[in-house]
Amino acid sequence: MQIIKNDNFFMNLAINVARRNKGMTGANPSVGCVIVSRDKTIISIANTGIGGSPHAEKKALEGIEIKTGTVLYTTLEPCVHKGKNPPCVDEIINSGVKKVVIACLDKNPLVRGKGIKKLENSGIKVIKGILEKDAEDFYDEFFKRINSNIPGINIKIASSADGKTALKNGKSKWITNKLSRNYGHKLRLFNDGIMVGINTVLKDNPSLTCRLSGLNKFSPSRLVMDTNLRFPINCNLAKTAKNIETIIFTSKNSSVRKINLLKNKGIEIIKIPTTKSGLSLISALKFLGKREFNSILIEGGNKLIASAINSPQLNKVYWFSSEKIIGEEGKPSIGKLNITNLENSPNLFLHNMINLDNNYLKIYKAKN
Amino acid sequence: MQIIKNDNFFMNLAINVARRNKGMTGANPSVGCVIVSRDKTIISIANTGIGGSPHAEKKALEGIEIKTGTVLYTTLEPCVHKGKNPPCVDEIINSGVKKVVIACLDKNPLVRGKGIKKLENSGIKVIKGILEKDAEDFYDEFFKRINSNIPGINIKIASSADGKTALKNGKSKWITNKLSRNYGHKLRLFNDGIMVGINTVLKDNPSLTCRLSGLNKFSPSRLVMDTNLRFPINCNLAKTAKNIETIIFTSKNSSVRKINLLKNKGIEIIKIPTTKSGLSLISALKFLGKREFNSILIEGGNKLIASAINSPQLNKVYWFSSEKIIGEEGKPSIGKLNITNLENSPNLFLHNMINLDNNYLKIYKAKN
Repeated sequence: MQIIKNDNFFMNLAINVARRNKGMTGANPSVGCVIVSRDKTIISIANTGIGGSPHAEKKALEGIEIKTGTVLYTTLEPCVHKGKNPPCVDEIINSGVKKVVIACLDKNPLVRGKGIKKLENSGIKVIKGILEKDAEDFYDEFFKRINSNIPGINIKIASSADGKTALKNGKSKWITNKLSRNYGHKLRLFNDGIMVGINTVLKDNPSLTCRLSGLNKFSPSRLVMDTNLRFPINCNLAKTAKNIETIIFTSKNSSVRKINLLKNKGIEIIKIPTTKSGLSLISALKFLGKREFNSILIEGGNKLIASAINSPQLNKVYWFSSEKIIGEEGKPSIGKLNITNLENSPNLFLHNMINLDNNYLKIYKAKN
Repeated sequence: MQIIKNDNFFMNLAINVARRNKGMTGANPSVGCVIVSRDKTIISIANTGIGGSPHAEKKALEGIEIKTGTVLYTTLEPCVHKGKNPPCVDEIINSGVKKVVIACLDKNPLVRGKGIKKLENSGIKVIKGILEKDAEDFYDEFFKRINSNIPGINIKIASSADGKTALKNGKSKWITNKLSRNYGHKLRLFNDGIMVGINTVLKDNPSLTCRLSGLNKFSPSRLVMDTNLRFPINCNLAKTAKNIETIIFTSKNSSVRKINLLKNKGIEIIKIPTTKSGLSLISALKFLGKREFNSILIEGGNKLIASAINSPQLNKVYWFSSEKIIGEEGKPSIGKLNITNLENSPNLFLHNMINLDNNYLKIYKAKN
């Protein structure tokens, strides 16, 4: 097969390079950058550094010689503002590159289009919109957060063929296979926080870490919704709270004594309002947005998933399912939704499906 | 692409020709036959006739000249016994064909291997086992019936992504899309009988016919499990019972008066034993086996599906699912199974998956 080295080819490479560091770049999005000479030879490749610095463009430009005809591909519009890093637009202008190809604009209203304008004003030719949808999908949670100050949310479900997540007696080991469960750990890596309801903590005593070899240090913050602060002071989350950020959202009336006990374990306790269906998810998300969380992965229980699935912040539902069948009395994947008409079903579409050794991962995406 | 005209190529064609008449050949299986000259030219193609006659081999041999090197491909071991049709083995021997390729043996213990033996004793070279698994899968229900005198059963489920078949208020129009529903009608064509529980009749007032254009006349017999004979005398099934065979299975205590009312509508009433979970499915199946039903499609409700899914007669589960989400209070696909350990989940594997315009049909097959 002949490789056609066009803009799509190089941008696809840049997106894949960006994917490599997804979940490891802190509040900054992971950007991919590829620099190509006039004869279509790749002369440099980089992505955003661990923790968010250096930026991909700066890294890619370092130590290379820019000749006539060199093109720089980047997955996201280069920044113009000086934050933790110098603005990439200046780096590009100073490098001498005369052509820049961009997948998608930065949707931050404070940035959008300004990066491109500054490049063009410096005499650089800019092409935008190459693999735009792929890049926008990749930055979906980030864009949600910078537009609204509220993180995007993803949902993870692992169920039997008939949509049950456990037997009536609570057993759930293992409904899905090893490959599905490993993919689940990858999702933890990709998200900044992982959120569960208190019943999941009480029932499973989970650690909620990313247990892929070598990636444990990128485990997301653990977030627990716990109205009455029933959180056990010796559970696995409490034991590891001094090493991995752990936040409990609770109601205004929770016991001060219990709060202090948990704070001593290194757990942060945040009081938020309640609604008639429990703690206000949106209040928790607003708090996390202020902390620059881009994305939250919600893993259960089914009540929390039910309130998340209709949220305007919803990005994707990752649904792993196996060939096992559990029957009516098993635990349902999703709590009560009070739908009286099928047209009011959550507005999702099937975005992708992946075969995981005969388990299936269906990725549903929220329609905007 | 170059077509490689080997045994697999011609047998694949024969199987596809057999598929064309599936569901239209009565108690006989639909067989496909392809006859190929020495230079690999196809000189004849046939399948079992509508209603079961003539047999495919006889039809294919009619009016063609057999020269040296001609090969006959057939999906099923040719019959040696004279039933409604003369034995195909004799037709083949008399035709002068000197090489026969067979996909799978007839699993009927009275036939198995005898057809091949007779061919070989007449100096014909026989190759067997070409695309054997595909053919055995195609004849699975038929083999089940001739081995045990009990038909094979298939289950059809149409559900939301979370495995629900209706809203709490009973609404189910439409959870799946048009293409899924059309495929459902094809399943009705492929099976000899379609079985539902009485609650499905009371709730949906279904016709249970194959409503694909031109195929209505191949609608399967309608079979209803109705312990207390609650069957409404003016429902759609009753109205059409004089044209399409309709059988109600009921308990020994059902009212004689109601039985006579229904018989007058053209409905057959069969009394069978009850078990602690209702009418005995196996008793109904045994009755249908005596009537030479090869396959029964079970469409609901979820209690009937729950008793069918662990049956040794189970062949396949056809599970259509959409992107809609209904939530905990919706109607579950499968009734109670009383599973206390995941290893006791029904023994299925994923056989195939088909994209139906972004609905998905997963076909699970029972492990033997």
